[in-house]
Amino acid sequence: MARAVIIAPERRKRPSDHGSEQTGKTRGSCPFCPGNEAWTPPEILAYRPQGSKKDKPGWSLRVVPNKYPALNSNGSWESGDGKFYETVGASGTHEVIVESPDHNSTLSTLSIPALKNVLAAYGARLLDLKQDRRLRYGLVFRNHGANAGATLEHPHSQLIALPIVPQGVAAELQGCKSFYDIEGGCFFCDMMRREEESAERLVWESPTYQVLSPYASRFSFETWILPKPHMAAFEEITGAELEELAGIFSQTLKRLETVLGNPAYSLVLRTAPFGIENGLASYYHWRFEVMPRLTQFAGFELATGWFINPTAPEEAAAILRDGRPYER
Amino acid sequence: MARAVIIAPERRKRPSDHGSEQTGKTRGSCPFCPGNEAWTPPEILAYRPQGSKKDKPGWSLRVVPNKYPALNSNGSWESGDGKFYETVGASGTHEVIVESPDHNSTLSTLSIPALKNVLAAYGARLLDLKQDRRLRYGLVFRNHGANAGATLEHPHSQLIALPIVPQGVAAELQGCKSFYDIEGGCFFCDMMRREEESAERLVWESPTYQVLSPYASRFSFETWILPKPHMAAFEEITGAELEELAGIFSQTLKRLETVLGNPAYSLVLRTAPFGIENGLASYYHWRFEVMPRLTQFAGFELATGWFINPTAPEEAAAILRDGRPYER
Repeated sequence: MARAVIIAPERRKRPSDHGSEQTGKTRGSCPFCPGNEAWTPPEILAYRPQGSKKDKPGWSLRVVPNKYPALNSNGSWESGDGKFYETVGASGTHEVIVESPDHNSTLSTLSIPALKNVLAAYGARLLDLKQDRRLRYGLVFRNHGANAGATLEHPHSQLIALPIVPQGVAAELQGCKSFYDIEGGCFFCDMMRREEESAERLVWESPTYQVLSPYASRFSFETWILPKPHMAAFEEITGAELEELAGIFSQTLKRLETVLGNPAYSLVLRTAPFGIENGLASYYHWRFEVMPRLTQFAGFELATGWFINPTAPEEAAAILRDGRPYER
Repeated sequence: MARAVIIAPERRKRPSDHGSEQTGKTRGSCPFCPGNEAWTPPEILAYRPQGSKKDKPGWSLRVVPNKYPALNSNGSWESGDGKFYETVGASGTHEVIVESPDHNSTLSTLSIPALKNVLAAYGARLLDLKQDRRLRYGLVFRNHGANAGATLEHPHSQLIALPIVPQGVAAELQGCKSFYDIEGGCFFCDMMRREEESAERLVWESPTYQVLSPYASRFSFETWILPKPHMAAFEEITGAELEELAGIFSQTLKRLETVLGNPAYSLVLRTAPFGIENGLASYYHWRFEVMPRLTQFAGFELATGWFINPTAPEEAAAILRDGRPYER
């Protein structure tokens, strides 16, 4: 068993603008558009010109608490685990990073400086949240397109901070630790050296970053962006590294759009838990995962925990390097 | 890591009839409709009147090999596990159970005898496949609606038989074994006694079956159907038990449709692995899981392995008992 589920009745009240016929149609009623700042809880962070007012227009990026959080004092955390049923309060925070004032923009259409700001906001929020000793993990993710679970069109990322390390992350940390204990090094550093040599799954690279179609990709055209130097926690990134990351990130998203025709995708930042302990800084390594959602997560995946992927990563990388629209 | 993925290039060639404007429009070109039997590989099993010919019309149910299998000799099974990368042949079988000759029917519109035949076919195929000593697990599942990953409208279930027990199943078996070792009984038998007593998550029951909204439901209105007598392997079901199951199954699917307005759903049969050994027959218990797909599996679920469910199971059960259409 050991199944944990977050029961979040507040989520049901959240608005959705899918079903509207055209992008942009809902702009007047969009809680993330400039002028509607009062529709969200007060901002936690904003990038705005000096002198412009908090919770008023003028911002280029804005972070606000999620009005319909997956976790808050009303939520519960249920797990059935052999001691029979267990329920605990689902404490944590749920923030929204509104990436641009432009309702119709998206990560791939942002300018490099604007995209750099989005990445900087991820880091700034993680740095701030990790000061709260009750929190153990900060999960940054983004759902692009209805097929990936986005319910509002206005471009935004989400950050959920949790009092425990999620099971999917914990399993990976355990794997990395085992590798480190045996090999004396970081799994992902080793992986990147191998990928560099074989090059068959390499999409491209910059001085600091490698972009690849990972071995055992779960999704067709799943794409990872990793820093070549060893770095466990994303929030330790420097300004120059952010600038370069924004460049290769933009280039990669644009390429996926060209090749796959603006696919829905899930984006996840895999980074170290808060609190660098037990050698975590040595054995973990952050990365972004972009997972195009070309097929549905269906009965087989739900039952087995395994994914069926119709595109071999070597083929996906070759198609992405080529860059021509891919006939599916 | 220990991530396993099935790379199945054959799957990409499979046809899809979504995008067509109306149900039924694609009937003439449907590989599962009567008259088009030659478009599928030869049938493995069919329910048809005596004297009617194999692979010709006249059948009421037909089982054929999947023409675009997730597993066959061309597939590969990739996992990254600390010994670095590993690839093995993805051996196994992938069958399609065509549930009715009627393109526009679905499980909930089938007559009770026709639904009984579908359930009987699941059992018959499992019984046959378990004779193959290379196979360790038979997974029966069904994707209803595009949001649940169905690519062909004609009503059909799928059966994938695997040379290993899937990780999701193995984890549950382990949990059941631990419970048995401590408590001396079956987790699910105990669970049903508790659910019977509290009744708050009980949807309804028949003499042999219990239908409930499970504690720690992953999906809004997730619904389980379990046999009250202890039974580890579905294929051991008797004719009378099948008849009763068809009745309560139909009633449950109809109720979900009325309440949720024909939702997409994933249906999975959780049953014991092939080969009753190590006391498995005592500690496991089969069930059907119906998982309505009202929200998307998004970045959070992908990263954490956890589900966010906006509907508490106690509330879902009350709404299902009530039976009136639910305003979402």
